[in-house]
Amino acid sequence: MGKRIGKNTVEMENNPSVYSFASVCGKKEAEGPLGDQFDKIFEDTTLNEDTWEKSESRLQTEAVNLCLEKANLKSQEVNYIFAGDLLNQCMSSAFGLRSLGMPFLGQFGACSTMAQTLFLAATTIEAGFADYSVAVTSSHFCSSERQFRFPLNYGGQRTPTAQWTVTGAGAIIVTKSSEGPHIKHATIGKIVDLGIKDANNMGAAMAPAAAKTMLSYFRDTKTYPNDYDMIFTGDLGEVGSSLLKQIMLKENYRLENNYNDCGLMIYHKEAQDVHAGGSGCGCSASVLCSLILKNLKSKKWNNVLFMATGALMSPTSSQQGETIPGVAHLIHLTN
Amino acid sequence: MGKRIGKNTVEMENNPSVYSFASVCGKKEAEGPLGDQFDKIFEDTTLNEDTWEKSESRLQTEAVNLCLEKANLKSQEVNYIFAGDLLNQCMSSAFGLRSLGMPFLGQFGACSTMAQTLFLAATTIEAGFADYSVAVTSSHFCSSERQFRFPLNYGGQRTPTAQWTVTGAGAIIVTKSSEGPHIKHATIGKIVDLGIKDANNMGAAMAPAAAKTMLSYFRDTKTYPNDYDMIFTGDLGEVGSSLLKQIMLKENYRLENNYNDCGLMIYHKEAQDVHAGGSGCGCSASVLCSLILKNLKSKKWNNVLFMATGALMSPTSSQQGETIPGVAHLIHLTN
Repeated sequence: MGKRIGKNTVEMENNPSVYSFASVCGKKEAEGPLGDQFDKIFEDTTLNEDTWEKSESRLQTEAVNLCLEKANLKSQEVNYIFAGDLLNQCMSSAFGLRSLGMPFLGQFGACSTMAQTLFLAATTIEAGFADYSVAVTSSHFCSSERQFRFPLNYGGQRTPTAQWTVTGAGAIIVTKSSEGPHIKHATIGKIVDLGIKDANNMGAAMAPAAAKTMLSYFRDTKTYPNDYDMIFTGDLGEVGSSLLKQIMLKENYRLENNYNDCGLMIYHKEAQDVHAGGSGCGCSASVLCSLILKNLKSKKWNNVLFMATGALMSPTSSQQGETIPGVAHLIHLTN
Repeated sequence: MGKRIGKNTVEMENNPSVYSFASVCGKKEAEGPLGDQFDKIFEDTTLNEDTWEKSESRLQTEAVNLCLEKANLKSQEVNYIFAGDLLNQCMSSAFGLRSLGMPFLGQFGACSTMAQTLFLAATTIEAGFADYSVAVTSSHFCSSERQFRFPLNYGGQRTPTAQWTVTGAGAIIVTKSSEGPHIKHATIGKIVDLGIKDANNMGAAMAPAAAKTMLSYFRDTKTYPNDYDMIFTGDLGEVGSSLLKQIMLKENYRLENNYNDCGLMIYHKEAQDVHAGGSGCGCSASVLCSLILKNLKSKKWNNVLFMATGALMSPTSSQQGETIPGVAHLIHLTN
C-alpha cells in the first residue's frame, strides 16, 4: 500500500513496474529525430481504414497488441485497461479496444492522458487489484484537425503558435515487479485556467498548470531538477515549454540541460514545418514508450520525471468562446 | 490492500466508505416518483447560464459543493476528483470543476460513469493514496439532445425505444471508515458490441454488456440475486432491463422482486411521456445519491448491487454508421 508525501504527491510501495511497452506512429513521425525508436511505422496513415477515426482506433489496437506480444501475455490475462484519446466520447479507445476483451475504463485528460492512464494502472497494482494493467493513449493528425480545427481539405493556414498533432500511440503493461522501470511517485494536477482562449496556442494555456504540478512535486519531495537524469514534459511545445521554464525560474527551479519537451523532440522543427512542435496524447505516449522507457530500461537513465500536460477544451467550448482549462500530471520513474 | 476474487471481481479490505453524498436535478425529475429524494431542484433548467453546456457544468459544481458542505470538508482537503459526463471531451466536468482546486481525473464510460468514478475513488483509498476522493457525474437533457440527436428547436419525434436523458448530477465523497455504506466489491466490465446501430435504442445495445458483467460478478462471488436486498441497474430503461432479465434467466439467475432500473424509477412512465425511461450518467448518479444511499444509510437495505451501464458511442461514430459498444460496471455496497 502506498502513502502520501506532502500535499499532492504519492509514493508507491508495492513496486508497480513497466512490464512491457510499445509505440506505433505515422510517416511524419518516422521521418523525425526519433524515427528509429518506434516499434512500428505506418507509412500509410489511413492504416487501410475508411475514416480517420478508425485509423486512429487501429493505432491503439496495434500498440496494445504489440505490447502483449512483447510481454508474451494474452489479452485475457489483463485485469484493467485505462485508455484515452482526444476525440469526442473517447471513441478511438472504445472502438480500438472493443474486441480485446479487457475490463475497460475510458480516460480523458486531453494531452495529459498518458500520465493519467499510467498513474491509474499503477494504482490498481498498488491496491492489490491487478496482476497486469494496461495504459494506452493515441492521437491522429487527421482526426484531430477535423474535430478541433478545420477539415484537411479546407487547407487552412496554421498560426506560428499552433502545434502539430502526432499520429501515434503508446501502450504500457504495468505489473508488480522488483525489476524497473518503476512508477515510484505521482502528482496528479489541479485544473488551472488563466483565460487563454486561442485553440491554436495550447502551450500558453497549459504552462501554468504544468508549473503548478511541477512545483507541487518538487516541494512535496524536497527535490530539485538537478536530482533527476532527465525531466520531460509533453506536449507544451515551444511556447509552453519556454513559459514553463520562466515560471519555474521565478520560483528558483532551473530547468536547463536535463529538461526537454516531447513536442519539441518528435519532429525536426524547421525541416518538418511543425511550427511550435508536436502535440496530442499520442505524442507524449509515443515518446515515453520509445526513447524514454528504452533509456530507462538500458539504465542510461535511472531517475526520470515525465509530466504530461493537457488542454481540456472541446470543439463546443471553443465555439462558445470559452477559455481553455489546463491540467498536468507528473510521474516519477526510477530503476 | 484489496484482493481479487474469481476472474473479474475485487474485494476492498481497507474500508472505503461513502462519507457524504448529494444529488441535484431539474424540474422534470422533481416531478417524478423520486422528487422528494433529491437534495436540490432547479425548476429553471438553464440554471441561469447562457448555454446548456454551462447549465450542465453548474449541476456538477452544485452537487460537489453540496457534498462538501454535508461532510463539512473544504475542497482543498479532497485528494482526487473522478468526474465524467456525456459531452464531447468531458466538458461539463472540466468546466464545472475547474474552480474547485481538486486534483482532477476525467472519466468517460457514458452512462456507466458513476460506477466507474466510484470504483476509482474507492481504489485510491484502497491504495493508501487518499483521505478523501470524490466521484461525480452529470447529464442534461438539452445538452445531450443537441450533441447526440437533434437541436431541441427542431422538435423531432422520439421513437418508442428512445430514453429521456436525465437533467441531474450525483456526487459522493469516499473515505476510509468502519461506518457504512461500504464499497465492498467491484466488477469492471468488458466492452460488448453485438451490432446494434440505433442511437435511439441504447437499452438493447447495453443489455449484453450488462449481463456479462453481472454474470461475472455472481460467478466470482458465488452468490445469487436473492442474496441481496436490492439490485439496481442504470440506465437500461424498459427495453434493456427486459432483455437483461431474459439473458440472466437463461443462465438461471432470476432478477425478480428485488431488481429495478434507475431509468425506470426516476420518471412516471406514462404521465411524463418518457418512452423507454430515463438515461444519461446523471440518471444512475442522482438515483444512487438519493434513494439508494439514503436507504443504505438508514439500514433499510444493507446489501445492494449497483450496476451502471454505458453505450460508448459518439456523434461521429453514429454518423459514420458504426455499431454501439456497450459496457457495464458493478459495485457491491454493504453496511
